[in-house]
Amino acid sequence: MRPATREPALTDVQAAWDRIAAHIARTPVLTSRTLDAETGLRLFFKCENLQRAGVFKARGAHNAVFALRDEEARNGVLTHSSGNHGAALSLAAATRGIRAYIVVPENAPALKVEAIRRYGGIITFCRPTLADREATAERIAAETGATLIHPYDNTNVIAGQGTVALEFLAEVSNLDVILAPVGGGGLLSGIAITAKGIKPSIRVFGAEPAGADDATRSLEAGQLIPQTDPKTIADGLRTSLAPVTFSILRRHAEGIITVSEPAIVEAMRQLWTVLKIVVEPSSAVAFAATLAAAPRLRGLRVGIVLSGGNVDPKTVPWEKP
Amino acid sequence: MRPATREPALTDVQAAWDRIAAHIARTPVLTSRTLDAETGLRLFFKCENLQRAGVFKARGAHNAVFALRDEEARNGVLTHSSGNHGAALSLAAATRGIRAYIVVPENAPALKVEAIRRYGGIITFCRPTLADREATAERIAAETGATLIHPYDNTNVIAGQGTVALEFLAEVSNLDVILAPVGGGGLLSGIAITAKGIKPSIRVFGAEPAGADDATRSLEAGQLIPQTDPKTIADGLRTSLAPVTFSILRRHAEGIITVSEPAIVEAMRQLWTVLKIVVEPSSAVAFAATLAAAPRLRGLRVGIVLSGGNVDPKTVPWEKP
Repeated sequence: MRPATREPALTDVQAAWDRIAAHIARTPVLTSRTLDAETGLRLFFKCENLQRAGVFKARGAHNAVFALRDEEARNGVLTHSSGNHGAALSLAAATRGIRAYIVVPENAPALKVEAIRRYGGIITFCRPTLADREATAERIAAETGATLIHPYDNTNVIAGQGTVALEFLAEVSNLDVILAPVGGGGLLSGIAITAKGIKPSIRVFGAEPAGADDATRSLEAGQLIPQTDPKTIADGLRTSLAPVTFSILRRHAEGIITVSEPAIVEAMRQLWTVLKIVVEPSSAVAFAATLAAAPRLRGLRVGIVLSGGNVDPKTVPWEKP
Repeated sequence: MRPATREPALTDVQAAWDRIAAHIARTPVLTSRTLDAETGLRLFFKCENLQRAGVFKARGAHNAVFALRDEEARNGVLTHSSGNHGAALSLAAATRGIRAYIVVPENAPALKVEAIRRYGGIITFCRPTLADREATAERIAAETGATLIHPYDNTNVIAGQGTVALEFLAEVSNLDVILAPVGGGGLLSGIAITAKGIKPSIRVFGAEPAGADDATRSLEAGQLIPQTDPKTIADGLRTSLAPVTFSILRRHAEGIITVSEPAIVEAMRQLWTVLKIVVEPSSAVAFAATLAAAPRLRGLRVGIVLSGGNVDPKTVPWEKP
């Protein structure tokens, strides 16, 4: 059994930013008077959909890859991922000039596989079970000596994701609230450590689909309750918290807001048509939660992290007008 | 007959920027290593799709509205438009607290009519002929005393659109080339005056659909040849040059690049899926032209103006994968 992941501190996030700033995009913050008027809030959207590889995960992946010592890096990095982390890790490895081995379930969407290939990841397909994913990854690790970079149960990954909040608080003065989606909790816990470390009075909320609400249930129960049968369009949020992200969120998150599938689709439609950006369903979850919480946040300055944009525009889930 | 529109100078553009900066968005510039690698260029995308009202026309409209003397402004402003200018003018008028009368052909798309309403424009429907549009506008002008703000045959509008280039050259050092779409020519001529005024060695290209190529034909013939039967998905580019925009482009534009309809659709797909932004077909025309011209621009720093994002994402024109 590998040792428990250490919780990063604010200084780790600052070190991460120094390490990755040259390799990632400093993403823009968008505002919309139309959405402000609709919600009665002052909204700021941090656009990680415009991040390299189309997702915030480029931050954590670059931090983990560039934190490796040369003798570790030499053998490459490894992960199992059907989603964005595999592409982000491939990109980060290519930037450092090392190999990335990505174990991909054979039923992974073609778009995701294509992204991993584009960034030069070395793909090994496996059966779509956690057991086979882990067994395949262990075999490759044994064969290559590559370092496993878990998508969120990893100190450097969490610290890297925290740099979103470092930029956000530097770019927008006097934020009262930050909302971000929560799946495995790497993004939300990195943000919570960073935002509360810089400004203790800020309130950090997670947002998750009602059909994949393990964070809500875990925090209510005071113990990890893994997600067994997630049912949501938000494919980035079907995973479960890890012990380290759970522990961070228990102390630093104000709460988790759950939203229905129709609310996610409607929020996504508004972001596309009003903000004019392509966001994936997981990003829409954070905005849907903001809409749900708007009455109790009235008048506040609210930062929303739009986590990614990797979705085929042909598959938008709302009806033609 | 009203007097010929005066050509704005660089100083008019600078004055426009001072006038409108508080009311418009300073839009972000995006880059993509994926698209750089594909084209062999260094690309910079100025995102006017993220402008207020979703289109660069917010610039010209605000400049025209805020340049009015109080006694003129009191009676409101007026235009006939089936597209983005009507919405942008409504927004600018609302910002100044005056009325905007918008004459709209009865066959205008619901999305555009909705945008005009959202910004408080007072709509009068007319038959979808230029004759009836103009007659209706004249009647309203006589009744209300409102000032007509033409979408591009207007000095302040052209100067306002030129502020795109003012920001672009301030944000990106050493641009070699700028490409922008050309319909009536307000955007392209404003950009040409500004960019050539600041940096005489820069090359400014227009981009238009082969199915609405009046700018190409007019510049070749050395005289205005109006567009009679435009056939293109790029609804913002179906209009014809005005004498003033034609005159500016003759002197300052390096040339016009025409592109086919399939090339427009493919360019639009790439912008959505790689840059993760919602752009309307007219914006894709400028990128399609860049792809076409890439071999002869090899290695250069190329700025592309993405003009707007007002399109329903449900209607994306490419096939599902």
